[in-house]
Amino acid sequence: MTHAPDTRPDVVRIALLGAGNVGAEVARVLLEQPEELARRIGARPELIGIAVRDTSAQRTVELPQQLLTTDAESLIDAADAVVELTGGIEPARTRILRALNAGKPVVSGNKALLARHGQELHEAAEASGTTLNYEAAVAGAIPIVRPVLESLSGDRIRRVLGIMNGTTNYILDQMDTTGASFDDALAEAQRLGFAEADPTADVEGHDAAAKVAILGGLAFHSWYTIDDVYCRGIRGITAEDVEAARSAGFVIKLLGVAERVSSGVNLRVVPTMIPRTHPLASVHGGYNAVFVEADGAEELMFYGPGAGGGPTASAVLGDLVSALRRVVAGGPGIGPVVHAGLPATGVDDVQTSFSLTLLCPDQTGVLAAVAGVFAEHGVSVSTMRQDDVRDDPRRPGEDLAEIRIVTHRARNADLVRTVEAVRGLDVVYDLSGLIRVEADD
Amino acid sequence: MTHAPDTRPDVVRIALLGAGNVGAEVARVLLEQPEELARRIGARPELIGIAVRDTSAQRTVELPQQLLTTDAESLIDAADAVVELTGGIEPARTRILRALNAGKPVVSGNKALLARHGQELHEAAEASGTTLNYEAAVAGAIPIVRPVLESLSGDRIRRVLGIMNGTTNYILDQMDTTGASFDDALAEAQRLGFAEADPTADVEGHDAAAKVAILGGLAFHSWYTIDDVYCRGIRGITAEDVEAARSAGFVIKLLGVAERVSSGVNLRVVPTMIPRTHPLASVHGGYNAVFVEADGAEELMFYGPGAGGGPTASAVLGDLVSALRRVVAGGPGIGPVVHAGLPATGVDDVQTSFSLTLLCPDQTGVLAAVAGVFAEHGVSVSTMRQDDVRDDPRRPGEDLAEIRIVTHRARNADLVRTVEAVRGLDVVYDLSGLIRVEADD
Repeated sequence: MTHAPDTRPDVVRIALLGAGNVGAEVARVLLEQPEELARRIGARPELIGIAVRDTSAQRTVELPQQLLTTDAESLIDAADAVVELTGGIEPARTRILRALNAGKPVVSGNKALLARHGQELHEAAEASGTTLNYEAAVAGAIPIVRPVLESLSGDRIRRVLGIMNGTTNYILDQMDTTGASFDDALAEAQRLGFAEADPTADVEGHDAAAKVAILGGLAFHSWYTIDDVYCRGIRGITAEDVEAARSAGFVIKLLGVAERVSSGVNLRVVPTMIPRTHPLASVHGGYNAVFVEADGAEELMFYGPGAGGGPTASAVLGDLVSALRRVVAGGPGIGPVVHAGLPATGVDDVQTSFSLTLLCPDQTGVLAAVAGVFAEHGVSVSTMRQDDVRDDPRRPGEDLAEIRIVTHRARNADLVRTVEAVRGLDVVYDLSGLIRVEADD
Repeated sequence: MTHAPDTRPDVVRIALLGAGNVGAEVARVLLEQPEELARRIGARPELIGIAVRDTSAQRTVELPQQLLTTDAESLIDAADAVVELTGGIEPARTRILRALNAGKPVVSGNKALLARHGQELHEAAEASGTTLNYEAAVAGAIPIVRPVLESLSGDRIRRVLGIMNGTTNYILDQMDTTGASFDDALAEAQRLGFAEADPTADVEGHDAAAKVAILGGLAFHSWYTIDDVYCRGIRGITAEDVEAARSAGFVIKLLGVAERVSSGVNLRVVPTMIPRTHPLASVHGGYNAVFVEADGAEELMFYGPGAGGGPTASAVLGDLVSALRRVVAGGPGIGPVVHAGLPATGVDDVQTSFSLTLLCPDQTGVLAAVAGVFAEHGVSVSTMRQDDVRDDPRRPGEDLAEIRIVTHRARNADLVRTVEAVRGLDVVYDLSGLIRVEADD
């Protein structure tokens, strides 16, 4: 309902679930800046409690003891809005549904949950006329969810390309600037706190995949889960791959991509060579960036810190203030429009260029044989460069040639068949460095 | 009021004022994609008319003749929402007020009007519970208004820095990459259609100043007009300035800045040297970008096309779809929070570094005299480089020294007094290339 000005609430009560880095920072701002936030919200925000697993646990940031509780359900029931920063599927899912079913807006930073149960949660929010927001779940503090949902709501997005994981970007950036191996760059990232002791979720691309599922769904007005995302990590990227890319004017980034293709939408996380002139190429260290291609807007890029307590809390608080303004003003919340039902497709129909390197005997006819296989499979070669190689450990004592090929844009399925056929040639001893390339053809 | 699902409107009627490049593109999308837009809006968008000055005028894009009318007022009265793309102060202001006073949402791209009468228009929108949106008025298609208003609504913005004018960015980019003079680069920009025959509004910074007034007001929750913006254009930038910046690792950009200072908020449009490593340095040609520094979010950048019919229409349509979704859902529109009343201040309290070049006799004691003047005025020198000069046309036949100085961050007022005193020294023949520098100290 709409509140007449004289019936507007004076106070809005906030329940915070979770007191980690981000939760503690959200609590700090709510407790330290209530007057300033009140002027923006139109009512005084009151943090009524913080649900934690153990109220007596040691914390890095001190929080008022009287706000801590283990009874999340009672806290939710007493609140006007809920901020969920616990992570994981359960009990987060059940608690968020409890709030949404009661018509209370929820702000969450829980990408794992949203990439798995986003549809269920959104349907609950819509049924009770409230909102579910999660700017913090995609690319940290970068405002990307709201621009995609609102600013681009009259446009047709063709593709979203993002550097959505700071750990892998730091590692690849180190490999590019220092020539380090993957293992050395990872060790350095762990030493500096950019990578966790178990870096699997980051380096295998799972963290980025959750973000691609969420953002791709919003961009293409369809529901996807993390299982819809084709995912390749960066463990297989070698110093040689990085150097070969560099010498050709490219840099390797782990890109999260959501792209309209003929059969639907392809969602993928893949190491990709991009030209050094591309705006995404200059995104260094732990920064994130999302590049959007749309019919009207052409090319947009959003850039900022991909993680960290302060930046992520900023995204949470932006969602919270916006949701509370709606609570104060009255009227239903408005969620994403999910009408398109575009199927998630495999990579078969995806068209990119590819780079690959062959080790062959240095003899006449080799180039012709290789080129013939590409032609036969309908994959057009953009550049082919042959260099003599001596004393390669793979074929000691032989005169060898290294052939580096970059294709034109080709269907993934055609490329896979081409690679199989090339590998089967007697004159090809080895095929390595097979990496996607995003470049203007 | 909230519409119960069964009382929601089936059709929303749109009045379009103006049929220029952007207006024609907005009309095209509304006429060609009604089904897709209907699914996003929740009701069918019907373009009920296009108000123009002369219905029989020749147009570059063909529009359905039966939609054209000169009676804007009747069109507004028959519509559910109004899109104003005529530009100029009147009759745009009166027409927008007519719509807002009737509770109809308005989408505008009229930066001149908003930088002059934004407060009056917003107050009218708020009084009747409707919305006024104008993403297209600031930095073309780049979603910056909505992120500042909503995504950053729980953060404290410290500074907004933007390349907000494509014409001047094209000219400065040409001067930087080809070594061209300002006049030659301007002529080339005019030949290619990047600059108008009368380029005053662009090269003198007035266009950027309107955008700074609008965006600065939103960022700092205060009202400003274009008169509050300190404005310097790029006409005085020489090829020598550009080359001197380049050799020191900088590039000159025309920056629009809104910055919190001790006495309020400084709004300015000034040619500025920025390090080539800064994300804004790689914004080339007609592209725009806005860089935001905030307590929580740290550093964000938004990048995209700064002008053009398609991109600007995308911004207009995003605002329109969002406004119409609210019309369909019911409930009041929510506008910007303008509570801070921070005064616009002059540049006196602004702290930046400065670069300047002196022509002096090549004799002992000169450096000491110059350094003494800086110290006396409390301006600390960061780098000082002296080169011998022979046969300078300003002092033929004399042995001269050119001294290039970059200061540390200094108050503008202190710098102005320093420059006056340096100019008064007998041993200073000329002082040139005085340009602000934005760099980390």
